[in-house]
Amino acid sequence: MHKHGGDIYSHPNFIDFSANINFLGVPEAVKKATQSALQEITHYPQPGSVRLCQTVAEMEHVTPEQVICGNGAADVIFSLVLAEKPKKALIPAPTFQEYEQSLLSVDCQVEVVNTLKEKTSEIVSEESFLDKVMDDIDMVFFCNPNNPTGLLKEREYLLRLLQKCEKAGARLVVDECFLDFVSEAEDVTMKPFLEKYKCLFLVKAFTKMFAIPGIRLGYGLSSDKSLLEKMKQVTQPWNVSVIAQEAGMAAAKELGFMERTREAVAEEKGYLLEELKQLPVEIYGHAANFIFFKAEKGLEKKLEQYHILIRDCSNFRGLEEGWYRIAVRSRTENQTLLQGMRAVLLAEKVL
Amino acid sequence: MHKHGGDIYSHPNFIDFSANINFLGVPEAVKKATQSALQEITHYPQPGSVRLCQTVAEMEHVTPEQVICGNGAADVIFSLVLAEKPKKALIPAPTFQEYEQSLLSVDCQVEVVNTLKEKTSEIVSEESFLDKVMDDIDMVFFCNPNNPTGLLKEREYLLRLLQKCEKAGARLVVDECFLDFVSEAEDVTMKPFLEKYKCLFLVKAFTKMFAIPGIRLGYGLSSDKSLLEKMKQVTQPWNVSVIAQEAGMAAAKELGFMERTREAVAEEKGYLLEELKQLPVEIYGHAANFIFFKAEKGLEKKLEQYHILIRDCSNFRGLEEGWYRIAVRSRTENQTLLQGMRAVLLAEKVL
Repeated sequence: MHKHGGDIYSHPNFIDFSANINFLGVPEAVKKATQSALQEITHYPQPGSVRLCQTVAEMEHVTPEQVICGNGAADVIFSLVLAEKPKKALIPAPTFQEYEQSLLSVDCQVEVVNTLKEKTSEIVSEESFLDKVMDDIDMVFFCNPNNPTGLLKEREYLLRLLQKCEKAGARLVVDECFLDFVSEAEDVTMKPFLEKYKCLFLVKAFTKMFAIPGIRLGYGLSSDKSLLEKMKQVTQPWNVSVIAQEAGMAAAKELGFMERTREAVAEEKGYLLEELKQLPVEIYGHAANFIFFKAEKGLEKKLEQYHILIRDCSNFRGLEEGWYRIAVRSRTENQTLLQGMRAVLLAEKVL
Repeated sequence: MHKHGGDIYSHPNFIDFSANINFLGVPEAVKKATQSALQEITHYPQPGSVRLCQTVAEMEHVTPEQVICGNGAADVIFSLVLAEKPKKALIPAPTFQEYEQSLLSVDCQVEVVNTLKEKTSEIVSEESFLDKVMDDIDMVFFCNPNNPTGLLKEREYLLRLLQKCEKAGARLVVDECFLDFVSEAEDVTMKPFLEKYKCLFLVKAFTKMFAIPGIRLGYGLSSDKSLLEKMKQVTQPWNVSVIAQEAGMAAAKELGFMERTREAVAEEKGYLLEELKQLPVEIYGHAANFIFFKAEKGLEKKLEQYHILIRDCSNFRGLEEGWYRIAVRSRTENQTLLQGMRAVLLAEKVL
């Protein structure tokens, strides 16, 4: 059974810190678009999401031919892996679990490099990860900022990785699903290298920023047209629903909302970090809209009595019990979380 | 590029006879469910669609463990093929194109048996199709009633096919996506054999009956638990959107609507068939909510001037120009179609 964040179905009426969703919620324009899309559900979705790709291209400043849309970012990743059928792939750990899951779906040999050193907020083994990119590697995944660790790598490192991948004939998949929450995104995104490096594939999602994980909408960017064509060949033509296509077209124009989100997340994250420092927790990465930390085992269970759901990360490869991820949410919700954590960790009474 | 029915995006404001959607439209309860599901899109869908599987199981009189849901029936088919990775498969032609597409996505060798004999409404080569089920075949697809031919095979034939598949160690996939439109469905469905035959896999969809192709919702039925588990392993956990899950749970209770649909389709189909007999067209199968026929080449283009979209079937394997499929729609719409067809085929003036 899959175990992930966001399982509000087993925890109804909990405050959900376990899924990294924008706490500002769905922008009004996107709500309206989903509403009017309900009138169109008697039609099949447009195959290839042609109009949506056009809109995404405008937002991302790429050409429509460089965009491929999917039923969530995970769908894009599975299509990519099925299209390429890599024999051997390299992934860091801990990271988003669906890289490995998708690779195993095509019987790929997966080499895992543990990149998290305890008690520092640095990714270690940087050089050793690069060193692993040998000629026998067909595909490399890198999530930036990384989920669940919240660590952001600078572009220089990714560029070195990209160049090594190109030499080795490997596909480099950079997952930038959380990069839009980062203020220095423009300095970090690998988009400027799409045109020059055909081996580069970027994954992005509407899910987190526009708070629509229930709708499923992600996309990939690449200048390798034959790859995108192959991905379409191994995927059903109607993978992106009418509602997702309409929501995406509306969302892609919400640049102001994205800016407001970055500001709100930065402010609330600052507050949360300050308060967390007063608690017996070790804070690690927090580059995106979530905070990764270590605390006493069983914290997640104890918080349930306060109707608080946090992400127990112990089932991530490379992690063990005691690692947690919390989404940054609104001030009131964050206060509730902190109250609960103080009660559990400091035996403070909840008012 | 994919070419299918239902491309209303290139033909806005056309009456769409090219997609086989229930002309009664979306039942009210399903509309309401999608409406209230919009309030829940900030949550991830439930992995494994657990509650939906329960509801589908009740509707289908199977156990919840025998149900797997997908992002449309096509998603179920792709997951099945990816989970099994057949080396050699057998499909009839013409039939739903995604069988072959999914098989090719795992580099499967596909043996195609042409089962349509011109100028009869019988599937021929029945025995030769059965004879092809040898030990080297890993998977067999059979669509009943078949899309696009509209031909319905009796259970006796399918049972023979099933027994041959079991002997050969092959998976038999029976696509019953259109069977709910058939009045004798209960005598034809292979559901009674699910429990006994682990090698049997049934594909069904909410898309057609409940007129929600834009939402994407299909499901598979099998008693082979390890197969269903494997399908989940090769698929992202959130493949069925929140809206699709809610729509499905409402739809599964609309048994009265399904009955009314069968009656309405039968009546309108009777009318269409009577009128089509007056035209220079050769009518083939029409067991489901669509009619398959042969007429002069280019009919689809000529009907465009009347804002009528029909399915040119020439890109189905085993067919050529001049084959068409039309959905049964409402009386007024059917009259518009007939007017257009009379104008094109008999040079009758459109009033």
